[in-house]
Amino acid sequence: MALSKCSRLSGPLIKQLLDTVDNVLFDCDGVIWRGNQVVPGAPDVINLLKKNGKGVYFVTNNSTKTRKMYADKLTLMGFNVTEDEVFGTAYCSAMYLKTVCKLNGKVYLVGGNAMRLELEKVGISQTGVGPDPISGVQIDWANVTLDPDVKAVVVGFDEHFSYTKLNRAMQYLSNPACLLVGTNTDTRLPLEGGKAVPGTGCILKAVETAAQRQAQIVGKPNHFMFDCVAQQFSLDRDRCLMVGDRLDTDIQLGFNCGMKTLLTLTGVSTVADAQANLESGSQERQGMVPDYYIDSIAELLPALQG
Amino acid sequence: MALSKCSRLSGPLIKQLLDTVDNVLFDCDGVIWRGNQVVPGAPDVINLLKKNGKGVYFVTNNSTKTRKMYADKLTLMGFNVTEDEVFGTAYCSAMYLKTVCKLNGKVYLVGGNAMRLELEKVGISQTGVGPDPISGVQIDWANVTLDPDVKAVVVGFDEHFSYTKLNRAMQYLSNPACLLVGTNTDTRLPLEGGKAVPGTGCILKAVETAAQRQAQIVGKPNHFMFDCVAQQFSLDRDRCLMVGDRLDTDIQLGFNCGMKTLLTLTGVSTVADAQANLESGSQERQGMVPDYYIDSIAELLPALQG
Repeated sequence: MALSKCSRLSGPLIKQLLDTVDNVLFDCDGVIWRGNQVVPGAPDVINLLKKNGKGVYFVTNNSTKTRKMYADKLTLMGFNVTEDEVFGTAYCSAMYLKTVCKLNGKVYLVGGNAMRLELEKVGISQTGVGPDPISGVQIDWANVTLDPDVKAVVVGFDEHFSYTKLNRAMQYLSNPACLLVGTNTDTRLPLEGGKAVPGTGCILKAVETAAQRQAQIVGKPNHFMFDCVAQQFSLDRDRCLMVGDRLDTDIQLGFNCGMKTLLTLTGVSTVADAQANLESGSQERQGMVPDYYIDSIAELLPALQG
Repeated sequence: MALSKCSRLSGPLIKQLLDTVDNVLFDCDGVIWRGNQVVPGAPDVINLLKKNGKGVYFVTNNSTKTRKMYADKLTLMGFNVTEDEVFGTAYCSAMYLKTVCKLNGKVYLVGGNAMRLELEKVGISQTGVGPDPISGVQIDWANVTLDPDVKAVVVGFDEHFSYTKLNRAMQYLSNPACLLVGTNTDTRLPLEGGKAVPGTGCILKAVETAAQRQAQIVGKPNHFMFDCVAQQFSLDRDRCLMVGDRLDTDIQLGFNCGMKTLLTLTGVSTVADAQANLESGSQERQGMVPDYYIDSIAELLPALQG
């Protein structure tokens, strides 16, 4: 096994690496799909890994789907997957609020339906989703009615995000005891064809700027995402491989949690990005250097079929 | 005249200072009013300064009013003011696009009616104000129709700011030739009674995060605001006094432009804030130390009446 970091994973090295791990964690966007297009070969790779006895888990910062919605989408694409193998930030944020924050109160939700559903599933009530209109003039906005039971503002992807929601979040957060939790800080949501739309990171930045404080982040590279999986499936981190397309979220998460890391080049980050981090001499950026890289996870296929 | 910085302005020092200046530039919010409440004595101070032959100008980062709207509000409050003495960022942004950027095209406007009116007044067309709804799913948002004549995204205060506007701004800005201009970076809009609502800085942060670049800022502390006044009224900066309630915008502008500076304590910043900057030893923070401070501009009254 090569000891140098950022090596191309190919030939016999693939099987050698897979022999050292029991569990493989996959990011979704840019790894197994891009928007609604499946990465060719990805379903076979996942299904064969499981057939070969590996645990396979999906760890995504995207907060727009419940575990069930992800499982349905994956199944439709040909992946052999169950709901409990999927860890999205809608689910993980609900778990974070319940287990880490031990929240005793309601959530003001800047987010969508999936977040609402996952919160309800763990018994946390929230103030509703969709537009949050406001009338009157500025001083009326500052005096907007607040629900005294709200103890946390939770920010995820919200296509109904608006100035009025930003205002209400800020008024709740003017109480220092009100928590501010964000699903993730990804600034763009990559789509098929190299397109993108603004990500949760943009919305969160607006709320943090208004509230003049930083959110607690649930998503990658925060280790909470891994903890969620590790606890539920008793994972041994020394025998885990994290596969992702982003150095700052996926690979950094793998580094933070002591997993082996594999960068796939079907998404956001490039080998040049990884090399730049490696050669930067910056200690901080060493967490954003993968152990291995690969053009696409489809390249794992021969070793799994063999 | 005391040479030390951050001195309390009182007694005979007031007249001595006023004798050294021909022009006084006032911020509005927190200086002459707070939301819709006039600072007691402020109209008399302004009117007497003018009666004593001083030029008086209003320089505000707030982009929600045209020069005419400001003049009307000021007149209603008892200030003896004309439209051409008011420099708000709605007007100054239009001037900036026309004179500095020499914009040859349309503006995608994240802002309100006042910005639209000031742009129209200098002959720059824009795509409209108010809600900017969008239909379909994410990939449709990424492929939203763009006006090929748009050459700049301009961001000011916009109560209709929304995810869909953020998305359209980002799609325009994916063209590196499209300019990104912001009226100001104030994170909160202070109102009467210590209340506040989110300021333009929050909206701008969301757009900058999505576009992955920084905006050109028109407002204080950028010297363009002073240049606007100085050019139109042939001001001698050595004989100008900047009066404001914020160290990071008003006092920094005065410092950047070589004016004398006076912090008034009816607004955001405190003497302790100023002292902390003075004693920080940081070269960068010395621009945020006023020459003088005063409890309220009303304290200038006796020297003007005498």
